[in-house]
Formats: sequence, C-alpha cells, structure tokens
Amino acid sequence: MKQIALLIFLVCSFSHAQNQSNELSTNVPGAPYPRLNADSSVTFRMQADQAQRVQLLMDLGQAPYDMVKGDGGFWEVTSKPLLPGFHYYLVSVDGFDSTDPGSRAYFAARKEVSAIEVPAPESEFFAARNVPHGAVRAEWYFSKAAGDWRRTYVYTPPGYDRTSDRYPVLYLQHGWGEDETGWSLQGHENFILDNLIASGKAKPMIIVNENGMTGVTFSPPPAPRPGTAPTTPPPRPNPNALKAEKYTLFDNIITKDLIPFIDNQFRTIPDRDHRALAGLSMGGGQAVRIGLSHLDLFSYLGAFSPALFVTDTAKDYDGAFADPAKLNQQLHLLWIGVGSDDFLLAPVKGSHEALQKAGIKHVWVESSGAHVWTVWRKYLADFAPKLFQ
Amino acid sequence: MKQIALLIFLVCSFSHAQNQSNELSTNVPGAPYPRLNADSSVTFRMQADQAQRVQLLMDLGQAPYDMVKGDGGFWEVTSKPLLPGFHYYLVSVDGFDSTDPGSRAYFAARKEVSAIEVPAPESEFFAARNVPHGAVRAEWYFSKAAGDWRRTYVYTPPGYDRTSDRYPVLYLQHGWGEDETGWSLQGHENFILDNLIASGKAKPMIIVNENGMTGVTFSPPPAPRPGTAPTTPPPRPNPNALKAEKYTLFDNIITKDLIPFIDNQFRTIPDRDHRALAGLSMGGGQAVRIGLSHLDLFSYLGAFSPALFVTDTAKDYDGAFADPAKLNQQLHLLWIGVGSDDFLLAPVKGSHEALQKAGIKHVWVESSGAHVWTVWRKYLADFAPKLFQ
Repeated sequence: MKQIALLIFLVCSFSHAQNQSNELSTNVPGAPYPRLNADSSVTFRMQADQAQRVQLLMDLGQAPYDMVKGDGGFWEVTSKPLLPGFHYYLVSVDGFDSTDPGSRAYFAARKEVSAIEVPAPESEFFAARNVPHGAVRAEWYFSKAAGDWRRTYVYTPPGYDRTSDRYPVLYLQHGWGEDETGWSLQGHENFILDNLIASGKAKPMIIVNENGMTGVTFSPPPAPRPGTAPTTPPPRPNPNALKAEKYTLFDNIITKDLIPFIDNQFRTIPDRDHRALAGLSMGGGQAVRIGLSHLDLFSYLGAFSPALFVTDTAKDYDGAFADPAKLNQQLHLLWIGVGSDDFLLAPVKGSHEALQKAGIKHVWVESSGAHVWTVWRKYLADFAPKLFQ
Repeated sequence: MKQIALLIFLVCSFSHAQNQSNELSTNVPGAPYPRLNADSSVTFRMQADQAQRVQLLMDLGQAPYDMVKGDGGFWEVTSKPLLPGFHYYLVSVDGFDSTDPGSRAYFAARKEVSAIEVPAPESEFFAARNVPHGAVRAEWYFSKAAGDWRRTYVYTPPGYDRTSDRYPVLYLQHGWGEDETGWSLQGHENFILDNLIASGKAKPMIIVNENGMTGVTFSPPPAPRPGTAPTTPPPRPNPNALKAEKYTLFDNIITKDLIPFIDNQFRTIPDRDHRALAGLSMGGGQAVRIGLSHLDLFSYLGAFSPALFVTDTAKDYDGAFADPAKLNQQLHLLWIGVGSDDFLLAPVKGSHEALQKAGIKHVWVESSGAHVWTVWRKYLADFAPKLFQ
C-alpha cells in the first residue's frame, strides 16, 4: 500500500542533486518548476490530469496566463520577461485558486500564496552575503489589549548576543492581508540590515514586526476575475472615520503592550529619539496614524506606498498635521515614498503635495515600480540609513 | 479595475470580528472553513466553479473524501470524527493536488500542505499557556561542508536573555520531506518545553533544528492514488548501504559546522554530557546513525518512530552496536518509541528486540498512534524530562 511505497522511498530513493541552476530561490528545494529562462521569463508547469482550464494568476491575477495542456496531464506556460524582484502568484484550476506545489508559500491576501523571485544584479542588497548575520526571533508576549498571547518577529543585529550595548528600535509593518512574517520572508529585512550595517551605512538596530491585521475581520475582496471591472466608482475615503475601527486595537497593542515588552525583553534605548515606526501600504497608513498620535513614543516615521489620504492638513488625521512648525520640531524624519506604477500613486502624491504646501518637512521619494515587495525592500534600504544618526 | 476594488477594500471594508468559535487554530485568520463540529468531525468547503471532481486527501491521501458540489461553485464534505491532534491534508481538484486556501501551510512531503489541528483536553501540554515563554530564532551560519549559508532554528528557554547561565543543547530533527521549521510550527517544541520547564519537569535547554533533507534530492514519491497499491514488494533495506549517500553530508554539517556555530553563538555547555541528538522518522534514523558515530559529541539519543532497521547488532550500523557493555557505559540515554498504528512498527519493534537481546540499554515506548506529529509531540514531552538530569 501507500505506506510501503513511502517506506521504500524513505530508505532507498536518494540520489545526488542535479545541477538545476535555473530553479528559483522561491521554489521548494528540488522542484524543477517554476524555471527561470535567460530572458527573465519564467516557465510554469503543473499537473492537473482532468482539468478543463488552468490559468496562472501572476501578481495575484493582474496578469493571467492561460496554461496549455501537454503530455501526462501537465499544463505549462512561459510568462513574458518579468521585472526583477518578487512576484506573488496563484494557480486557477477549473475555478479553484490555490498554490503551485513547486513554490514555497508566503502569507498574502489573507491566505498562503506562491511566489517567484526573479534575480538581478540589483538583488545583492537583500542577499545573504558573506557578512555577519543577525537573527530573526519569534517571541511570544501577552497583550492585555488583545486578551491573548501574540507572536512578534524581532530582528536582532549581528553581535547582539556578544555585547552589552543597547540599541534603537524600528517597528516595521507589513501590508493588508500579510502578517508578521512578511518583512523577513518576503522582504528580507534581516539581510538588508545585515548588509547596510556591514558597510557602515546604517546603525545597528532592532526591528520589530507585528501582525497589523489585528482585531478586525474583512469581507473577502470583491475579487473581480481578470478582465472585469467593478461597476460603481470608488467612494472618497474619509481618513478620520477609519480611526476607530481600523486603528484603536492595533494602536493599543503596539503602544501599551508591545513596546513595554520589547523594552523589557531586549537591550533597547527606550526613548522617542531611538524609536521609529514605519510600514508599507496599510501598514504605512497605520504608521502615520499611530505615530502621529504618539509623538511621545516615536520620532521617526516611514510610509512606504502607504494608504495615506491627506488633502486638508488642518483637519485630516484629527488635526495631526495642523501645526506644521511644532510637528517639524517633533519629528526627526517623516519619509514617504511611492512607485510611479502604484495604484496608490495619486493619493500618496496628493498627500505629499498637501504636506509640502503646508510646510511639513518630509523626505519624498517617487520611485519606479508598482505596489510590490521589490519596491518596499528598496525603500527600507533608503529609509534605514536615515534612522538614529 | 481590480486596483480600484482593492483600494476600496483597503480603506472601507473593515468589520468587527465575528464569533467563530469552531474555526481551527490552523485556519488562516478569519477563514470560516475548515470548521470543527461537536463530534470532532471537520467540515471542509472550497470554491471550484468548473471542477468535475474534488477530493479531500486527509492525512495526505490515506483517507480520501469525495467532496460534493453545492451552490455558488462551492464543494463541501464533512469528515468522520477525527483523532485529536495534527492532520496534514491536501485538496485534489480535477487531478491538481494543492492546498486549501482556508488553512495555513506547513512544509511536508517536500511541498507546502494544509493541516488541521483537532483540539482536545490533552492538547494543553503543547499550548501557549500562561507561563514564561522562550523564543524561536532563525539564525544563519556558513557551512563549509555545504558550501553555503544555512538557516537553523534555535529555541532558547525562558529567561535566556536575562541570565548569564550556560545551557545544555538538544539537536532535534524533523522527518522526510519536512524542514527546520517543522518542530516549531507543527511540533510546538517551544510550548512543550516552556510548559515542562515551568512545571519543573525538564531542565532549561536550548533546542536546535536543522534541515536534514540536505545535499540529496529525491525522485518524487511513487504517489499511488488513494486506493491503488504498488505492484512490486519492497526490497529489504540495507542499513549500511545508506550511509554514504544519506548521511555523510548532513553528518558533516551537524558535527563540523553547526555544533561549533551553536557553541560559539549561544551560552551552551559544550560537552557530550550536555548534548543530545534526536529526531523523528528519517530524522530518527539520522540521530541514531550520526549520534553513534560521534559519541565524543553526544551522550543522549532519541529516535521517534525512526527509520531504524537493526537486525544483527554485531554488524548493522557499521558495528555501532557490537560492544553493548561499552555502549551502555557511553550513552546516558537511548530512547526509542513508535506507535502501534505506525507503518514503521515492525522494523522499529524488531530493532528494539535486537537491542534488548544484545543487552543494549534503552528506553522503549510502544504508544498508541500512527506516523504523525500528534505522537511526536508526546514523545518530546516524554524524552525531554529525561535529558541532562
């Protein structure tokens, strides 16, 4: 039976590794597909013997490819040449959207999804190079605000365990549908900081990631099938109305439970001058909102492709921007960046212009790229060297 | 377009959490299915609009269920009442075997798979209880044997960062097709030890997990479809023939690279009296093989449902069992356990009988249960209190 097959397999079927240089780093070890081609296109192949229709939903459906059935029930497709960096994807088999067994899983869009890393020379800044490496710890702490034990991920810089030094702390948040694992597994925050620290570009620091999807559930996204469009125009978001539902619990978790835990558990420098808060997308909105509400705790803020909707600096965000001179004096850094192909470009650029008009100092970066981890890794590499100097 | 839908979604569609007490801890947050019923059966539900046949492959295909199509393209099935504990599963949609979007993914069978945790009162020993918690660290080190940077997972006990104490170390390995994440994500080694340490039953210790699938690739398993059987009988494994291919690289990684790294990076007690090696299934075979080859390094060995095939103690395992009196003097503990429903029961029990006949001292546990994490968690809880006393 199957158990005997497994037994044979356990003891007998080892063979030496083949040279599969065009496997991707995001593949499960030994999986021959997905496979990178010389032109940066990627060939995908998977088995679905009795399926009628198989699609590859690149970038979570923004670029669907019809796969073609070949011998042995295998379906195959080769993408167009892909931009270097990290791409989420799903496979759709007769309407079932799930992961590719050839890929590692990453938590995104509130579920496990597949991904490919398309390498490029510019990827070196987040690679595991021959430099001293820090660690990424899963730590558990009890949150009174949430009423439960919670897991947080904590990067400690190289040498943390060999000194008695105290370190500044960056609280760094993922985007909607992701979790506390995103910045290390997708973002490689640890290797980015290892490399920046090794080259003397960033101060050694602790980075803390929490789960910002906290205390709220979300209806599933409308999930238009590729090629379809919603029939109603989007309502104008009201930044103030979001606060109660979206931020209060997470604000309390961060400020009342997480920060005291981190300052107790790690050798931190526990003051506002040595504490930063940043995030991407929804996490960028949270960073601005929570950070501006707690300027006693934070003096550096970063908003990467953020859900940021400032139009009236006198009123929006409960008046947090209403006194530019005071805010400029309080903040060591307000960093805002967005990619030129990002669907949030308009509101973020509008927010930047409103802040600029009001005389609120900030670093503004309009980069190339879309709403993707490829961009956010670069933003961290730009942001981190500006902290705690 | 889709991006506008996502934008609406990002800012507008938050709602308070519903009370979904019959969600499983292994579900992605907020997923209403899989859903636990009062009789410990589980109801699964997933969307596959155009599929002709959807099966649930419980326990990776050992217990397949045909799912039934209902309204809206949703397929549903309720399992029979399930044993408490951890069950891997896959979904098969028209021949495509993949993960259930409602479940977290776990690395097993060389790919990401879904799982359910069926709770029970006996689950308390691996739950996150109100006791001091240790941490699980991802650490990177350079292995000369492997020629690359490698990731290892390290459990540090509660209080590790607050004392200058030195600790004994248990090297603890996963089974075939899994990786260094298995013992924390599937096994909850950290909570098991937190609870044992809090109750005074186990000494505080460090636990190290590496990836034992190292340096070898495997042909994909024959993967008989449920209900089919291989047509040839299994060959009798030759324990000695396995050594070169299966163990040498991993042996070198552990003994030449990992142990020196751990003893340098952590406050260990770096001697054989304070070093244990254990593992489950393939990892149990590795623990016995590598441990007996390095009695200068290890004095406690544990083999949980191991790939262990001793018949002739004079010759098998290159004569490691040939001098019982000497071995009994060298080993503080040799622990061997297997479940009565485990497909490896016969060879493991045969090995136990051969060792017993030769007068080789060992703890022998024949428990209930199959070849599953539910059993291995219990084995760790039995094994750990016997270490370093």
